[in-house]
Amino acid sequence: MIRASVVGATGYAGAELVRILSGHPEVRLSMLTSHQYAGQLFSDVFPAFFQRVALPLEEFDTRKLAECSDVVFMALPHSMPMTMVPELLQGGCRVVDLSADFRFSDPFAYEVAYEPHRAPELCRHAVYGLSEIFREKITGASLVGNPGCYPTCILLPLLPLATPGWLDLSRVICDAKSGVSGAGRGVSLATHFCEIAQAFKAYKVGEHRHRPEIVNVLEMVTGEKSRLTFVPHLVPAIRGMLATTYVSLREEKSEAELRERLRDAYRGNDFIRILPENSFPDLSHVRGTNCCDIGLRVDRESGMLILISAIDNLVKGAAGQAVQNMNIMWRLEETMGLGALPPVV
Amino acid sequence: MIRASVVGATGYAGAELVRILSGHPEVRLSMLTSHQYAGQLFSDVFPAFFQRVALPLEEFDTRKLAECSDVVFMALPHSMPMTMVPELLQGGCRVVDLSADFRFSDPFAYEVAYEPHRAPELCRHAVYGLSEIFREKITGASLVGNPGCYPTCILLPLLPLATPGWLDLSRVICDAKSGVSGAGRGVSLATHFCEIAQAFKAYKVGEHRHRPEIVNVLEMVTGEKSRLTFVPHLVPAIRGMLATTYVSLREEKSEAELRERLRDAYRGNDFIRILPENSFPDLSHVRGTNCCDIGLRVDRESGMLILISAIDNLVKGAAGQAVQNMNIMWRLEETMGLGALPPVV
Amino acid sequence: MIRASVVGATGYAGAELVRILSGHPEVRLSMLTSHQYAGQLFSDVFPAFFQRVALPLEEFDTRKLAECSDVVFMALPHSMPMTMVPELLQGGCRVVDLSADFRFSDPFAYEVAYEPHRAPELCRHAVYGLSEIFREKITGASLVGNPGCYPTCILLPLLPLATPGWLDLSRVICDAKSGVSGAGRGVSLATHFCEIAQAFKAYKVGEHRHRPEIVNVLEMVTGEKSRLTFVPHLVPAIRGMLATTYVSLREEKSEAELRERLRDAYRGNDFIRILPENSFPDLSHVRGTNCCDIGLRVDRESGMLILISAIDNLVKGAAGQAVQNMNIMWRLEETMGLGALPPVV
Amino acid sequence: MIRASVVGATGYAGAELVRILSGHPEVRLSMLTSHQYAGQLFSDVFPAFFQRVALPLEEFDTRKLAECSDVVFMALPHSMPMTMVPELLQGGCRVVDLSADFRFSDPFAYEVAYEPHRAPELCRHAVYGLSEIFREKITGASLVGNPGCYPTCILLPLLPLATPGWLDLSRVICDAKSGVSGAGRGVSLATHFCEIAQAFKAYKVGEHRHRPEIVNVLEMVTGEKSRLTFVPHLVPAIRGMLATTYVSLREEKSEAELRERLRDAYRGNDFIRILPENSFPDLSHVRGTNCCDIGLRVDRESGMLILISAIDNLVKGAAGQAVQNMNIMWRLEETMGLGALPPVV
Repeated sequence: MIRASVVGATGYAGAELVRILSGHPEVRLSMLTSHQYAGQLFSDVFPAFFQRVALPLEEFDTRKLAECSDVVFMALPHSMPMTMVPELLQGGCRVVDLSADFRFSDPFAYEVAYEPHRAPELCRHAVYGLSEIFREKITGASLVGNPGCYPTCILLPLLPLATPGWLDLSRVICDAKSGVSGAGRGVSLATHFCEIAQAFKAYKVGEHRHRPEIVNVLEMVTGEKSRLTFVPHLVPAIRGMLATTYVSLREEKSEAELRERLRDAYRGNDFIRILPENSFPDLSHVRGTNCCDIGLRVDRESGMLILISAIDNLVKGAAGQAVQNMNIMWRLEETMGLGALPPVV
Repeated sequence: MIRASVVGATGYAGAELVRILSGHPEVRLSMLTSHQYAGQLFSDVFPAFFQRVALPLEEFDTRKLAECSDVVFMALPHSMPMTMVPELLQGGCRVVDLSADFRFSDPFAYEVAYEPHRAPELCRHAVYGLSEIFREKITGASLVGNPGCYPTCILLPLLPLATPGWLDLSRVICDAKSGVSGAGRGVSLATHFCEIAQAFKAYKVGEHRHRPEIVNVLEMVTGEKSRLTFVPHLVPAIRGMLATTYVSLREEKSEAELRERLRDAYRGNDFIRILPENSFPDLSHVRGTNCCDIGLRVDRESGMLILISAIDNLVKGAAGQAVQNMNIMWRLEETMGLGALPPVV
Repeated sequence: MIRASVVGATGYAGAELVRILSGHPEVRLSMLTSHQYAGQLFSDVFPAFFQRVALPLEEFDTRKLAECSDVVFMALPHSMPMTMVPELLQGGCRVVDLSADFRFSDPFAYEVAYEPHRAPELCRHAVYGLSEIFREKITGASLVGNPGCYPTCILLPLLPLATPGWLDLSRVICDAKSGVSGAGRGVSLATHFCEIAQAFKAYKVGEHRHRPEIVNVLEMVTGEKSRLTFVPHLVPAIRGMLATTYVSLREEKSEAELRERLRDAYRGNDFIRILPENSFPDLSHVRGTNCCDIGLRVDRESGMLILISAIDNLVKGAAGQAVQNMNIMWRLEETMGLGALPPVV
Repeated sequence: MIRASVVGATGYAGAELVRILSGHPEVRLSMLTSHQYAGQLFSDVFPAFFQRVALPLEEFDTRKLAECSDVVFMALPHSMPMTMVPELLQGGCRVVDLSADFRFSDPFAYEVAYEPHRAPELCRHAVYGLSEIFREKITGASLVGNPGCYPTCILLPLLPLATPGWLDLSRVICDAKSGVSGAGRGVSLATHFCEIAQAFKAYKVGEHRHRPEIVNVLEMVTGEKSRLTFVPHLVPAIRGMLATTYVSLREEKSEAELRERLRDAYRGNDFIRILPENSFPDLSHVRGTNCCDIGLRVDRESGMLILISAIDNLVKGAAGQAVQNMNIMWRLEETMGLGALPPVV
């Protein structure tokens, strides 16, 4: 049994980790930390888990974590993990960090997007945890930088079409939409039910920090310079994310060829579902699952390729992919503990 | 492996059965029927199940069902199952019927609430499938009348307190609230998103057919004459049901005594969670689970006992309890296939 | 023109006052106060009002308010207005207070429900602003205690049936449901979109402070001792409130008689709509309006009278009734500025 | 008083017309037609309007309409109005048609997008009712083709920037999002609350009929050939529409210059609100109003211009603009009857 701990267990991603790991047949939950709720039970904070998860919430404690954990999942805001991870690694744990701190192999790239890095030497040892793309590197990793939700949703359809040079990466437009849980569990007027329930808006227009992450991976994988216009929007739904990406084809390709390329690239990857002709993703179809659904259209008038992809931001976009990465690191069945079916409704 | 079939697999309860049975380790799904969608794949109708459930939808066919099924789940509107079930039983299947057709052992009681019964001789052989209460009878049953969602939600807190004679059953008031999926998957202006999303109303005020079902079971179990005022309301949520029941205590009881009585009654029943003092159910805490959460208060001013209970109407209120009953009938672990944790959010 | 000011203009009730008063043909908005947002424009805080309401938000200032206002609307949490109102009255303003501070003519009753009153001598001069019931007293009032939302919704159907002695007030059960805006604009996990959007629960079970307010008015008007069991619930809708009240009839009355009595009582009152037979309120039908819709049923089995009433909690339950009271105080057409039709959808 | 009638008064746009016209000081509602509900009262179909709108619903009758109406609003699906409008015009009415039938001055363009036109000679006499742009022509029109909701929302920000030749119209990408009322009041599984409430998806990807309408106007106004990629999405909100448009600038322009150009173009147009720097529209800010809010950003990395615009699809996108056009036709104050403020929440 893998002994797993969750640091920051009371945010939405952390709690989703607890939920998924609780049902994982090869995992025993060891320690849950929460600064805000230390001393309470996890199920005091999430009463839905009354009589289901019995663990207490504790203050962060490197030594204790290192002793009781084979893997530590970090579910904290960026800038915190980079001060904690070095000692956890020294203590012998493997770490999956869900923040942005270890998503850039170049600490300067991190600094441009965020702030000066305080563990720069670790950056190049961390593996970017986009499971289907970097599986081999993840296997041997001791530190995985789990991808952002938008990068996961946007890169999965783009990469297999970009690597053969089919796409004009100099002008990619990505119009993305996220459910409200993406804003986290912190309280704010911006997530007040009354302000959201019949609203829809763009936010961080052209300024979201997931843009450099996406561009970074796109350029690293293709070796091409890329320019991405990225506008995220807030959907009045609890979970889920859908991205509509517009990109020109360098050479004419039929929808069938493009779809076939995606199918080839993801054959054997149960979580990536390439939808048939005239089918497009709906975020309700991936809710609660670790799936990324992908549909595409070549627009008959403009010739533009339209890629539409959807994930559950808390699962494939956070906790689910983190557990998938753990499965890869321990060479378990990659879908283990992640088999939940979507709700009928 | 139990070979299970679902008749009416494209309504919400039927599809939820498909979802739950797909993940059940001792079940193999045999046949799914749908009159409206016969000839299509289940996943054509529910695209969320693309590459997850591969079965086709077929027309109802007694012989074929009987041959390929050990158990048949009927998820049809009332009045249809009573014409189909006799032959299925003769064909050697056991049947769990989710409609009202076999919930009354007295066919005349059924007739008063619904219409003349066309298989009256079967009524007294059917077992009422309120799992925690009628477990022993269910074990040997060949035909289970699965309870209505409101009766499940309302009877579970009431029965253990009513059997010792603690409650004044002559004046029980039950104010119940259901999510929209309770109205079914049929199209209607009443379930149009725009008519519901910011609405809340009572419906079938004093006229809902679940009242006689509740009263019937209450009187059967307690031997007392009961009078129930019952008003269901429609909540703008997809799933879930919450009932607030007001009843006078015949003799003074503390909250602690009442809670203890419920804990005793349901000890060992994992799906019934008696909440601690000052905790009350929220339908979001039972979503996707087979749980019934129960909270209670003795009102300090009026002395009235307030019982609050919540279930997921499609799980404990329909498909989940049906599978729980199958587990009981086959003497499997009662929670098998029903272990889904609630969503974090 | 009446010069009107709003103290606490950035809560939901305060902002709704600003919205309604902006469109009132006999009102000129004078001063808006907000401690949290002083120095900003109202439309900075509520961007929907960009280019529509140009007023700044200022710190509370008794002298300034008194000078520039004929009427001051207090939209602050309870316990604050009682320290401010005496000087405003001395300054020559008339005041409509939306908090609980002046809803009890007996300061001791206030103390039991809330805390010691700091302007007890004013309590008996304040008029309870349930417009349709206390219209005459309101006309001459200098200080109106605007009713709570639940009391408004629950008392309007009850009072005309209780005054002739038709109801058994010793056992009234009121199961009430409110939209989320009733919880105010303050940030809290309890109003986070993700915690609410698919949830439904009871809160303050048997403990809500609107119960003594309701009982107080009921007893004052009828002269009878009353016992009320009151359970409020939270509906995942932005606005609106619906109450289902269960009460026994002292003598047999037909639905027609009861409806006729209500029609008589409210004849000429445009905001009270007595629905026809078999029609029941929906909170979406009163959204944005100052209406209270009332439906009723005599339950055929239990003989219990079921009263269902709905209001918009921010309009008839707060700002709308406050403006209606101002109209009464200034002997304007009572519906002036309050004629908004409900949305089609 | 203008005598106004609504044909198709029980769809959402038709009913919204009834609501707005009921409150218009210079209008008397004459006749409401509905095939489905003829013989009932409008308020039977829309119970929110009980005691507010007393008119009956009647079968369509050209002669009767012509006699009793100065203006007829057609709120029917496309292809029906073109058979009815000729006689209404002959009968002396002026007509505002909310369908697509008279939006194309070239009947062949209509045929390409829809079907053969049955009143082709009328097409060139109809005026396209984008009020702020074609005000002068509308003044004298007897037949106005009221614009589609998407064209209204997308063209208003684009046109003033395109006419001076600032935009590269050969590659415009428009990612649009509509509330569910845009799908109409007809019943369908696609608008079932349970299928929508936690969903988000694209629909008619690259195939929506509003694309040719947008391109047609864009080319007509600018004289330039345009290519538009258009993907509409469905937001789980009742009302509202938001469009995010991506277009390259032909020459470098600052955000300030672009904003100034829009302010100039729309000076004196109360319904168009050009938001200040760093402010972007939210569909909740225009709900219930006839406003179009416009925000913009020049993306610092790609140089792309991002235009974000929002309207209420049933008001500025349908009924409100229709009434605005009537005001223009009768030379009334253009905002008359359209002054509703947005909800606070």
